[in-house]
Amino acid sequence: MTTRDHGDPGDAPTIAPPLTAVTHPARPSAAEEARTVAAATFTATLATLSSDGAPWASLVTYGLLDGNPVLCVSTMAEHGRNLLRDNRASMSIVAPGAPEDPLANTRITLAGTVHRPGDADLPAAREAHLAAVPAARYYIDYGDFTVWQLTVERVRWVGGYGRMDSATGAEYSSAAPDPVVTNADGAVRHLNDDHAQALLAMAQRLGGYPDATDARCERADRYGLDIRVNTPRGWAVTRVGYVAPLDSVDELRHATVQLARLAKEA
Amino acid sequence: MTTRDHGDPGDAPTIAPPLTAVTHPARPSAAEEARTVAAATFTATLATLSSDGAPWASLVTYGLLDGNPVLCVSTMAEHGRNLLRDNRASMSIVAPGAPEDPLANTRITLAGTVHRPGDADLPAAREAHLAAVPAARYYIDYGDFTVWQLTVERVRWVGGYGRMDSATGAEYSSAAPDPVVTNADGAVRHLNDDHAQALLAMAQRLGGYPDATDARCERADRYGLDIRVNTPRGWAVTRVGYVAPLDSVDELRHATVQLARLAKEA
Repeated sequence: MTTRDHGDPGDAPTIAPPLTAVTHPARPSAAEEARTVAAATFTATLATLSSDGAPWASLVTYGLLDGNPVLCVSTMAEHGRNLLRDNRASMSIVAPGAPEDPLANTRITLAGTVHRPGDADLPAAREAHLAAVPAARYYIDYGDFTVWQLTVERVRWVGGYGRMDSATGAEYSSAAPDPVVTNADGAVRHLNDDHAQALLAMAQRLGGYPDATDARCERADRYGLDIRVNTPRGWAVTRVGYVAPLDSVDELRHATVQLARLAKEA
Repeated sequence: MTTRDHGDPGDAPTIAPPLTAVTHPARPSAAEEARTVAAATFTATLATLSSDGAPWASLVTYGLLDGNPVLCVSTMAEHGRNLLRDNRASMSIVAPGAPEDPLANTRITLAGTVHRPGDADLPAAREAHLAAVPAARYYIDYGDFTVWQLTVERVRWVGGYGRMDSATGAEYSSAAPDPVVTNADGAVRHLNDDHAQALLAMAQRLGGYPDATDARCERADRYGLDIRVNTPRGWAVTRVGYVAPLDSVDELRHATVQLARLAKEA
């Protein structure tokens, strides 16, 4: 699934490959990652086609209805006129909480076509937008504003350097946002502050890095932990999957205790 | 110059019009505003054309060479392949320090065509990108990366609700980033904390709001101050221009003392 776009990173800091098999590398699919990013914010950049067919990038806000972005844009703005003329559109959404290096951050592109909800569907679309963008109540009913729903046909997820994958619209539609990743900041901090030795054992015994000298959890999602390690051979980010996927962040503590025990026994 | 896209804001909080003439409403042009936003960050969303002519939005980093964005993108990424096939592109850049309501924030769209710098121009373009994006040193020399310079042909600036204007590529090229606005946070805080009465007098006597009950500086740029006022008729943001434009934030103190004196004498 996950691919690296480049070969040897040259003079970049060396990324060390694992020395042993990664026991359980389970991680979210690109479609799940995309659903998670889309659900984590309400601002995006929209790409539309200007009258001469050239691309036009502009800031928008959105809500979500079954994962499909719902926009509310004015025909007094170029993007609004563009969508009326050609309904092809894509949206770039960047995960909130950007790190110092923006290209290390997670972002997605959702591409497809926009449609005006019919009378039966408009109330739900309208409510989806207003739930995410309360300030839209001041303009959503103006005559120059149009509610559009993007039907996602193609998804690209980039999880930072060298982590990226595509998904179809069908995969995106049937996926769900991760219930853990956006609620686990406190738990991840706790793991790093109070359980550094357990993380190191996980990386050494389950994550394929027996020579890891230290380990730090970068992210917890419903399938497992991203653990960044240092080794004498360079750094790496490895994966330690839980015994079973979680349905809530409340299950994270049990799952990591289980991992710590497995690492001790391995 | 500045236009409001909508008429009466309906059930939105009422924006009160000025009761008397605004003495000196000087403010940056759309081209200057756009140069300022472009110079204030190094991340943008690029819109390109996919192989079927549909728009594609994606995160990029950029440096600036005479105001023109310099990109460094991989042909292993869709946007990199798109630019090789069709060099039309646009970039949406959002001013850093986003307020709670993203549509109240300043953003620009730069549209035009990208070109690969020739051998004579490549070193300067390369340095411009690296100066803004130091991490690019790890990949800029890979064979799959291309340095592109965007020739800006069309500019749209949106300064928040109801403040927006366009500029040509020529206007954008000949404008300069504002030397004050991105360096004046401390000075603006000082004005608000320690000179609230002077700001109120400016708004009442120079800004067209004799009925203002309080005033708060929202921004200082090289031409003047944006002052938000409350009145019994609603709120508004008015403009108090300095006697002469500033070339540096160091001149701001003198210029605002001058304004305070003018307001007293008016």
